[in-house]
Amino acid sequence: VVGAGPDYHSPVPSPYRPVTDGVLSRLREVLLDEEVLRDEEQRQAYARDETEDLRFLPEVVVTPSSTAEVQEVLRIAHEERVPVTPRGAGTGLSGGALPTRGGIVLSCERLNTIREVDERDMVAEAEVGVVTDDLRRAVAERGLFYPPDPSSSDVCTLGGNLAEDAAGPRSLRYGSTRHHVLGLEAVLADGSLLRTGGRNRKDVAGYDLTQLLVGSEGTLAVITAAVLRLQPAPGETLSLLAPFDSLDAAAAAVEAVCRVTPRLLACELVEREAVETVARVTPVPDELRGAEAILFLELASEDEGALFEAASALEAVLRERGSGEVKAARQAADQRRLWEVRRRVGAAVKGRSVYKECDATVPRSRLAELVRAARETAAHHDLLALCYGHAGDGNLHVNLLRGDLDDETWSDRMAAAEEELFERVLAVGGTVTGEHGIGLTQRRFLERTRGPRAVEIMRGLKGVFDPRGILNPDKVLPDEVAR
Amino acid sequence: VVGAGPDYHSPVPSPYRPVTDGVLSRLREVLLDEEVLRDEEQRQAYARDETEDLRFLPEVVVTPSSTAEVQEVLRIAHEERVPVTPRGAGTGLSGGALPTRGGIVLSCERLNTIREVDERDMVAEAEVGVVTDDLRRAVAERGLFYPPDPSSSDVCTLGGNLAEDAAGPRSLRYGSTRHHVLGLEAVLADGSLLRTGGRNRKDVAGYDLTQLLVGSEGTLAVITAAVLRLQPAPGETLSLLAPFDSLDAAAAAVEAVCRVTPRLLACELVEREAVETVARVTPVPDELRGAEAILFLELASEDEGALFEAASALEAVLRERGSGEVKAARQAADQRRLWEVRRRVGAAVKGRSVYKECDATVPRSRLAELVRAARETAAHHDLLALCYGHAGDGNLHVNLLRGDLDDETWSDRMAAAEEELFERVLAVGGTVTGEHGIGLTQRRFLERTRGPRAVEIMRGLKGVFDPRGILNPDKVLPDEVAR
Repeated sequence: VVGAGPDYHSPVPSPYRPVTDGVLSRLREVLLDEEVLRDEEQRQAYARDETEDLRFLPEVVVTPSSTAEVQEVLRIAHEERVPVTPRGAGTGLSGGALPTRGGIVLSCERLNTIREVDERDMVAEAEVGVVTDDLRRAVAERGLFYPPDPSSSDVCTLGGNLAEDAAGPRSLRYGSTRHHVLGLEAVLADGSLLRTGGRNRKDVAGYDLTQLLVGSEGTLAVITAAVLRLQPAPGETLSLLAPFDSLDAAAAAVEAVCRVTPRLLACELVEREAVETVARVTPVPDELRGAEAILFLELASEDEGALFEAASALEAVLRERGSGEVKAARQAADQRRLWEVRRRVGAAVKGRSVYKECDATVPRSRLAELVRAARETAAHHDLLALCYGHAGDGNLHVNLLRGDLDDETWSDRMAAAEEELFERVLAVGGTVTGEHGIGLTQRRFLERTRGPRAVEIMRGLKGVFDPRGILNPDKVLPDEVAR
Repeated sequence: VVGAGPDYHSPVPSPYRPVTDGVLSRLREVLLDEEVLRDEEQRQAYARDETEDLRFLPEVVVTPSSTAEVQEVLRIAHEERVPVTPRGAGTGLSGGALPTRGGIVLSCERLNTIREVDERDMVAEAEVGVVTDDLRRAVAERGLFYPPDPSSSDVCTLGGNLAEDAAGPRSLRYGSTRHHVLGLEAVLADGSLLRTGGRNRKDVAGYDLTQLLVGSEGTLAVITAAVLRLQPAPGETLSLLAPFDSLDAAAAAVEAVCRVTPRLLACELVEREAVETVARVTPVPDELRGAEAILFLELASEDEGALFEAASALEAVLRERGSGEVKAARQAADQRRLWEVRRRVGAAVKGRSVYKECDATVPRSRLAELVRAARETAAHHDLLALCYGHAGDGNLHVNLLRGDLDDETWSDRMAAAEEELFERVLAVGGTVTGEHGIGLTQRRFLERTRGPRAVEIMRGLKGVFDPRGILNPDKVLPDEVAR
């Protein structure tokens, strides 16, 4: 099998056809030379994403630079029954971009044009290879605002955001990526073009294919461009830092905090060990150290008086719920300094050790139960766990760290701990992924989360969009079989 | 055919089976006596909705009072191949609740329990027969806020809102119904239960069946209950009234108005003839009369100073764009008095004449073109047209009035005018329905709006959910055929 070797997980034995010389020459006919990557060294860069230590080598990587080229690639793959794994920036945490069957990796990196920012309609139309922060900046230059702010927004791309329905701190106020999508341009498995929605802010003509494609992780179609709804900027911001002397108390405070004011944009939680992990690699301001857990809050208003009024209402609730002295940051530089620490947690944890990031999410009132489950699960399986994340949305990233465990011990303990954690999450009405997606690694939990009838329906939908099963095989559905 | 008669449109010749005595006795086994309505007089109440003058008499009406009973009804209908038309409050404007094939009308009126308002999770769980305003009041009593505000909110029910993805004035700020749905309980065509989503504010486990069912007009499943996301109340409001001496100028001003401040909740437009239609049936405050068109704006903030600041920024833009003297209303009673006029337009127009309401929607910058198209189309076909609606969302209800035209003339002119109007709407990137749905009456426009490939996909989805085609036949898809 192409791509197997000591450095890579073996591709799953495949009912698909390999990328033959015939397939390669067909691809070269429709793409530029530099858009077909065959050297092993080139392909290695596309063998992994940010998911644990998983690697699968693709047989070929293509980097089409237009929607028409994406159509050509899929037409060929469909005819030749070659699997296609669409890829954004490779920052995914559930293995959604891993080419488990070898085949073609379709990287969207060259689909990177912002086609238009229309101030009058308050929409942007952009290709999926555009880096999220680049879009945010381009619209900000026109005085507009694109809310989604995933932590990797400086490198991740719109395509990955759409595929996984990415969220971020400000999703508390603005919702996840899907809430800001008005229309999509996508290529179906057979190479045909699908346009969904458009520039209308409301549109109920037929089933909402836009919302069905968002979050479908590249298994139903390859999204090539999106029309995104923009907003007036939210005004001035103010950040609050609330230290707690127990993680449980911080988690329990969240539901009360989120009811105080519609001005609240974000409510994030970071526990002590996570802050210390950042402190290993970069200086951390003193006021962030020492507490068992910290809540980071961000407020916005066009009016400074209103901002301070909301801040003191929040402070009162925080103190009532057991917070230590609440610190406020109003200057932009001070706010950046605080949020920088929050933003760096993910990378710092990932730099510290091999890890398993459980994207646990619960109804907001169950957060204290979630952190208890995380701590107890880790203890049961003798692992170190760190919690941080989007507390206001009930979504915490529970990171299990490998440290210096050997392969087998790590793999056994991690699997058992994950199993126990998610059983407890599901028992309180939670879900196994709030923003990372099911991808490759969480498939065993799908049926337990959604129920067998829902999974049956999902399998039917997959068949409608991709009857040959060539699009991103082994993702989302637990036991997908090529047809 | 059961139900044909001089007062009703004849049911379309049907490949389905009729409601035999055998079917009736099976229904009576699983439902209470008062939940099976067979008298013609009873059935007449379910023969129409608010769509033009269309009537189709169902063979039987059932009013189950629990999800389990809905499951039983669908199990029987599926086995017996009897068509089922789900029905909310019957306020629909595209014929979505019309039993075109006779069969069973499944009215959700008894599914009217608010199961829970959970302040800690900030969600409500309610059955679909709950009147929208009842839910809004129940959550307001806990200091919370459910944003969707369709104009018929005092009578319409959550089920219809979910089926059509209902919107209202405040959708400008908060989005349509779908933006507030976290999870659904639904019954599939074969009677099996489907639960989608849940109480988590974020959840990307599998394809988003919640969003697929919202807006599917009862053709994919019968939604029985929903988990709805609530918000902190928006604070104090202030309303502005901006008179224009031309409809075009009012329409053209909207895009600039909507960019001024995130405090804007609503931006509605009503043209002179619509105000005068209200004045025929109820007194209208003087300040609302005389202008060719009026923009109604609503602002919200927790802080009164901020409210007035936003109001003067808006006033400046309105004046710059040609508005006459802008009037502000701050007292609750004054605001209610203004909005009452806006709210009454729909009913007043419907009381004046038989009508065809075109739910035309365009990208916001194209509004002036939309009102021009409405005026010119009406002139070409010698009809009276009235425009009013959700201008901030690019959505105007263009009402064509029958007046005293005879059947044939009205029917010919209406069809030709609608055709011309929507051709022009589609040519500027608009859509044929912003919030009323495709239902029965707009099906001929679906393929032109969405493209043939998208309709093919939609047909595939219908087949996955409802392989026998018993759910709400003749709705959404242009040429659905029972299997």
